[in-house]
Amino acid sequence: MTHWDESKDVIVIGSGLAGLAAAIEAAQAGASVTVLEKMKMVGGNTRLSDGAFAAPCHDLQKKRGIKDSTELFYQDMLRAGLNLNHPQLVKIVAEKAAETIDWTIRDLGVSYQDRLDRFGGHSVARSLTTKSRSGIDIIKAQMTKLSQLGVEVRTRCLLLNFISDDSGIRGVRVRENYQFPDEDSGVIKNIGAKKGIVLATGGYGSDLSFCKLQRPSLPDSIQSTNHRGATAEGLIAALASGALPVHLSWLQMGPWGCPEETAWGKGGRFASYSVYPAGIVIDPATGQRILNEWADRRERSEAILQTGHPCIGIVDRRGAAMDLKTLKDCLKSGKVTSFQDLSNLAEAFEIPPSPLSQTLSTYNKAIANNLVDAFGKPLDQGVQPIDTPPYYAMRVWPKLHYTPGGIGINSKAQVLNLQGQVIPGLFAAGEVVGGIHGASRLSTCALIECLVFGRIAGQEVAAGKIEQPS
Amino acid sequence: MTHWDESKDVIVIGSGLAGLAAAIEAAQAGASVTVLEKMKMVGGNTRLSDGAFAAPCHDLQKKRGIKDSTELFYQDMLRAGLNLNHPQLVKIVAEKAAETIDWTIRDLGVSYQDRLDRFGGHSVARSLTTKSRSGIDIIKAQMTKLSQLGVEVRTRCLLLNFISDDSGIRGVRVRENYQFPDEDSGVIKNIGAKKGIVLATGGYGSDLSFCKLQRPSLPDSIQSTNHRGATAEGLIAALASGALPVHLSWLQMGPWGCPEETAWGKGGRFASYSVYPAGIVIDPATGQRILNEWADRRERSEAILQTGHPCIGIVDRRGAAMDLKTLKDCLKSGKVTSFQDLSNLAEAFEIPPSPLSQTLSTYNKAIANNLVDAFGKPLDQGVQPIDTPPYYAMRVWPKLHYTPGGIGINSKAQVLNLQGQVIPGLFAAGEVVGGIHGASRLSTCALIECLVFGRIAGQEVAAGKIEQPS
Repeated sequence: MTHWDESKDVIVIGSGLAGLAAAIEAAQAGASVTVLEKMKMVGGNTRLSDGAFAAPCHDLQKKRGIKDSTELFYQDMLRAGLNLNHPQLVKIVAEKAAETIDWTIRDLGVSYQDRLDRFGGHSVARSLTTKSRSGIDIIKAQMTKLSQLGVEVRTRCLLLNFISDDSGIRGVRVRENYQFPDEDSGVIKNIGAKKGIVLATGGYGSDLSFCKLQRPSLPDSIQSTNHRGATAEGLIAALASGALPVHLSWLQMGPWGCPEETAWGKGGRFASYSVYPAGIVIDPATGQRILNEWADRRERSEAILQTGHPCIGIVDRRGAAMDLKTLKDCLKSGKVTSFQDLSNLAEAFEIPPSPLSQTLSTYNKAIANNLVDAFGKPLDQGVQPIDTPPYYAMRVWPKLHYTPGGIGINSKAQVLNLQGQVIPGLFAAGEVVGGIHGASRLSTCALIECLVFGRIAGQEVAAGKIEQPS
Repeated sequence: MTHWDESKDVIVIGSGLAGLAAAIEAAQAGASVTVLEKMKMVGGNTRLSDGAFAAPCHDLQKKRGIKDSTELFYQDMLRAGLNLNHPQLVKIVAEKAAETIDWTIRDLGVSYQDRLDRFGGHSVARSLTTKSRSGIDIIKAQMTKLSQLGVEVRTRCLLLNFISDDSGIRGVRVRENYQFPDEDSGVIKNIGAKKGIVLATGGYGSDLSFCKLQRPSLPDSIQSTNHRGATAEGLIAALASGALPVHLSWLQMGPWGCPEETAWGKGGRFASYSVYPAGIVIDPATGQRILNEWADRRERSEAILQTGHPCIGIVDRRGAAMDLKTLKDCLKSGKVTSFQDLSNLAEAFEIPPSPLSQTLSTYNKAIANNLVDAFGKPLDQGVQPIDTPPYYAMRVWPKLHYTPGGIGINSKAQVLNLQGQVIPGLFAAGEVVGGIHGASRLSTCALIECLVFGRIAGQEVAAGKIEQPS
């Protein structure tokens, strides 16, 4: 017999967007709920996010006269995901996105900017952004709501493993007063869950060891844009309890990673907003281009990784003008360097000068003469030549950004086992879930998915006692 | 305490190339060994294979003056595998391939044809083929050797689950006298393994339900080239015991699948040897080409799947002449149909006639004028126009062919757990292992990998008693 140190109706593990949404719904349905968070701060990766939410068919689109449909959004996600996505789950995100945004406004008091963005891979402008341009707006609003509902959010509490019996998952073994990442810190406790558990521990983008179990050739120099706690132990605990692994080997990397900074910073922004839209990327070993600078994240990241070393992004005055504030910051910190002529640039980044000059000249001529680009970049869609000094250059090296793989769930957010059947008592939402995004996640589809499935998980876990296996 | 109905030093599960190689090595090292096979026949998918083995640096290459290296082979495998491959495992296959072929000749008495083939994706001709052009030559030779060694190969014996204690995997629960696929047939027994267990249960290419847990949008009409027993329960048993899942979502499909036949047959051969090398593939809904007919298996299969229905392969008299015997068989069985003019072909396959005729004409003109192909096919490398009646047409629809994903192992064929550590007592080899081939397996690399890691698993399992976890 397990000794339970305490018991609740519902235990939620993880305090990002998904976990807090689940806790709110479960508490509003009348369940006693505790949220466990291993870090000393709540919010997970949501804190670092830019607070943008894809929301097809939201009122703001109608106001702007933008024609959209849940079907179009669904097709966009499947295209990006190379059709590996689990269609039923994508449909649910598509259908519930707009009403979920309204819920954050109505029930949580969140405010959005009066703008709609069209991000890469989306057929139309459909993404809203919170007032502060950060996911933290929502975390704060969720924490306020949970406090009103009397729900405890316990930080520094690490999940060790699930405790189960023949009828399903019954509780969790945890380390309280845990000091990340000290595995021996804190005190072990067993907490029972009468109705069930929602796993919302996020992805493993900061867990290079786990990523390398899938892809051992990932260089050790690969950094992550994620917070330090984005590690795999919650996912591993679920797998160890028989959860279905889905798409674990797909790792989303950002080709705009700047090796001169940790996480996602000003260098990443300059690469993202100036280098890729208006510049070219060069392999310093050859002085040649290696990719279509407008290709999707996955293709660009893979092309850079193939060279085995950071590559050099180059843009001219015209291109850099797209974000002068960021340029200024990056010049000051040394992430970006300015050159009056190409030979100095070549010398500084150890690029053979003559091939580099040839590459620029070929590229500019191709634009002028409307030729087909060797890498498939559509040169007739407003691409400008790179010929106006000063030239700006920076190193780029992919960063782990998102892990679309995780554990399998059904449309009620119930976790599936290796035969595809429900594991009674276990629900999941957010980045720990695999299959919704398939091979590659579209920009601004993570936060909305966290909210949609977090809410479903909270509603479903509160709805009943642990079911017997069928 | 577990009641053991019987006990051996080593249990091998699966009687394909990998399992039998492991059993031979373990028995030769002095261990008592039993091989368990769930089907009533031994040999698994190896029976259906074409008996071809990549073997870089084999004597036959030197005799022919073909320059090769294990490094070149390694690079070829990594390129096909999109660099997801586990490099240490690939290196071992590369380094041990040639000596392993010699072992089959010297120790098993296997004969090979005096030819070397260069298959798609290989930089040079390096593949040997057995005398009968089937893997069955090796299975027969292995069975003879095992009989000499006094090793029992027990058919109709299904693995249900592993039995473990604190020090590792101790044995297996099985169903004897099992009648595939009747899950209630036979009698349950526990068999102990004093030194360890080698899992060699193969892939899950015939297990559409399991494949759809990774990729739910796979159409139910997808068939398989595998034998009926290529299902996932051995893999699932290992995962349920904490084995690391690797690359499960990668499914290799053959774009040459002919929906008018089960498994791989004459239609598949005609598509593979005539349609793709010399013809084009048309979407019947539009009359247009959809792919580079010379692209790799994965790209071609995905392009056909994207249309949502079988596509039409078309070749003319010149192209069909590449394999007249197969053409004749396929015409007789109705898998391929012959037409004197394109309008009849269009009518028979419900293709809009004018776009079809336009597609052929554009394609032929592009070849004549050495233009760039819209799908990237290198039209300057001996591609012939399609303009000489009769025209031959067949339906193509991908078939599941190989599952590169499975459980993780280290270079001693020891199975890894979710933290990447060894699970004491459990070894694996063959298609049940994931990671060696990464995203996509090169042709003729499966059988050699089965032999190389089957032998390693057999040697290692026999070498010692079950280790304590470190």
